[in-house]
Amino acid sequence: MTKNKFTIAIDAMGGDFAPKEIVKGTIAAAKKFPELNFKLYGQSEKVIEFLTDDLSNIEVIDAREIIEMGEEPVKAMRTKKDSSLVRAATDVKNGNADALFSAGNTGALLSSAIFIIGRIKGVLRPALLTTLPSVKQPDKQWVLMDVGANAESKSIYLYQFGILANFYAEKILKYKKPIVKLLNNGSEEDKGDQVHKEAYQLLKKSLLNFQGNIEARELLEGQADIVVADGFSGNAALKATEGTALAIFSSLSRVIKNGNFKTKIGGLLLKPALKEFAKVLDYNNAGGAVILGVNAPVVKTHGSAKSIAVTNTIAQLKEMLDTNLVKDVTKYVEKHEEEFNVKVEDNGRN
Amino acid sequence: MTKNKFTIAIDAMGGDFAPKEIVKGTIAAAKKFPELNFKLYGQSEKVIEFLTDDLSNIEVIDAREIIEMGEEPVKAMRTKKDSSLVRAATDVKNGNADALFSAGNTGALLSSAIFIIGRIKGVLRPALLTTLPSVKQPDKQWVLMDVGANAESKSIYLYQFGILANFYAEKILKYKKPIVKLLNNGSEEDKGDQVHKEAYQLLKKSLLNFQGNIEARELLEGQADIVVADGFSGNAALKATEGTALAIFSSLSRVIKNGNFKTKIGGLLLKPALKEFAKVLDYNNAGGAVILGVNAPVVKTHGSAKSIAVTNTIAQLKEMLDTNLVKDVTKYVEKHEEEFNVKVEDNGRN
Repeated sequence: MTKNKFTIAIDAMGGDFAPKEIVKGTIAAAKKFPELNFKLYGQSEKVIEFLTDDLSNIEVIDAREIIEMGEEPVKAMRTKKDSSLVRAATDVKNGNADALFSAGNTGALLSSAIFIIGRIKGVLRPALLTTLPSVKQPDKQWVLMDVGANAESKSIYLYQFGILANFYAEKILKYKKPIVKLLNNGSEEDKGDQVHKEAYQLLKKSLLNFQGNIEARELLEGQADIVVADGFSGNAALKATEGTALAIFSSLSRVIKNGNFKTKIGGLLLKPALKEFAKVLDYNNAGGAVILGVNAPVVKTHGSAKSIAVTNTIAQLKEMLDTNLVKDVTKYVEKHEEEFNVKVEDNGRN
Repeated sequence: MTKNKFTIAIDAMGGDFAPKEIVKGTIAAAKKFPELNFKLYGQSEKVIEFLTDDLSNIEVIDAREIIEMGEEPVKAMRTKKDSSLVRAATDVKNGNADALFSAGNTGALLSSAIFIIGRIKGVLRPALLTTLPSVKQPDKQWVLMDVGANAESKSIYLYQFGILANFYAEKILKYKKPIVKLLNNGSEEDKGDQVHKEAYQLLKKSLLNFQGNIEARELLEGQADIVVADGFSGNAALKATEGTALAIFSSLSRVIKNGNFKTKIGGLLLKPALKEFAKVLDYNNAGGAVILGVNAPVVKTHGSAKSIAVTNTIAQLKEMLDTNLVKDVTKYVEKHEEEFNVKVEDNGRN
């Protein structure tokens, strides 16, 4: 294998179109980024079947087990030691790779990231960060964190999400002093449950460019560069957004299909514009969801990702490696330990 | 005033287009439902300005104060005794009216409903119920509760929401054994935080037709007749749905406006179909959000409601009165007190 600075560990068996689309996407990335090495973990005969190009920066590592989409995450991680995912995560932990990619079981990836690769010391809860488009400025991406890693929340977690997401927005999306808002059920300072009221105060006192609450209704307007959310309602808001977009597009197709002649012609003429527009909300053009707070860059792309999404997600991992994101977060947390783990008065809910 | 069985108290001063659209909508309702009486509360000279018809079933009650949209709800309710809202709620409490309508400050209406009209004995937390369309079957409405009355949740509240919403779905939407689901961050039984795990078990043991969890992504598919949600994430899911729909429609208009000739013609031809479709998600065609769990039917319609929405919301209140919804809930809770207030093992979170 080529001598390269960074190696990306790829779970070749996770995702609806694995291993084919994962391998295809990795080949494209290996050509695009000859300065990176790739290790493809999975049943080698199946992986090799799709490895159409002989590239010196791709290595196949045989791993016999597969963690399925529906499996109980922690149990799967603990029992399937020879799965593509666990083998890949273990190599990242041991320094044989520098970053981890998977399109498979999100829970199992989360567990592997947290229990195998490990939490950054001082980070209480690693969480899932995703980027979303702004409908008013389609080129603008903004960050939502946590979108579902943590069902239970404390205000200190939300505060830490804000700081972690700020690193991502500054380093990867190149924002200067990104605008941070808190997903809440109203715009006023005293809105929300106890956890959100306290998180508001912690974020307000922080050095972040915190500009108050945002309601789920305003998310796609793109007023915030970073939206901090508890994992439960962040997940609900993200999924409601996806579900609504899908429902509208499928209804629109049905209206056009079942419509009169005029409607049909209109739909036909409008098709290229509609396609262009649908792209804004398409997974395959965005990267994946980042697990932030662990000792290496880890990204989960959508289960239905095609090769283009795989390549884009690898580019995202490369950016995280090139900018030293995880190392800088680790240094920051070490240096600001007390401030980062600011004490919140315990009222039984925190 | 005509001798009629039921009187609806209308807060004429709440909402973006008050009193004009409220009065117009009330006039239409008064003509449509001569068997109902209406009391319009507000600054009488302003209300009378729009009272173009002389109808024997409308009475104007002078109330000088107005509770504005941004005001702190409980404080506004406590200090503005001569506001249109507090006067209307007080008349419902005293038996001078049977149901309450407002398009104004939601928090103030909630406070007035709970503290003036009063909770049904045994109901721990009255909550907001709204109906939403199913995109696959545009004629099908389903129920979401709570959409934001309660920021803090306990599993017993969610269980009670299920039972209250079931009354609404059976009596008002005429469902037989409506399918009840729990809004959660995954489909499996053990998903969610402690509150949702416990709520799942309580709903499962109940007599409701409970069919497990639903994720926010599937909401608009209409698989459930009733979706039980905690107020915080129910609010996030509802607002994300609204915001996404709005964002898509406004982007679509922009794409058409800025498009080439072909796109413009396509948009023009498609316009009637798009309008037809947008109707499905339009507030003005649905009723308002019901405050369920208080001693009278109370409905909040959207702040930007036009007269047609006002009339539709009044029809919804009429249906609640005609079917004895509140009385039947009250009787049920009395009779099943122990079961309705089922004990949950206290683990510090409940």
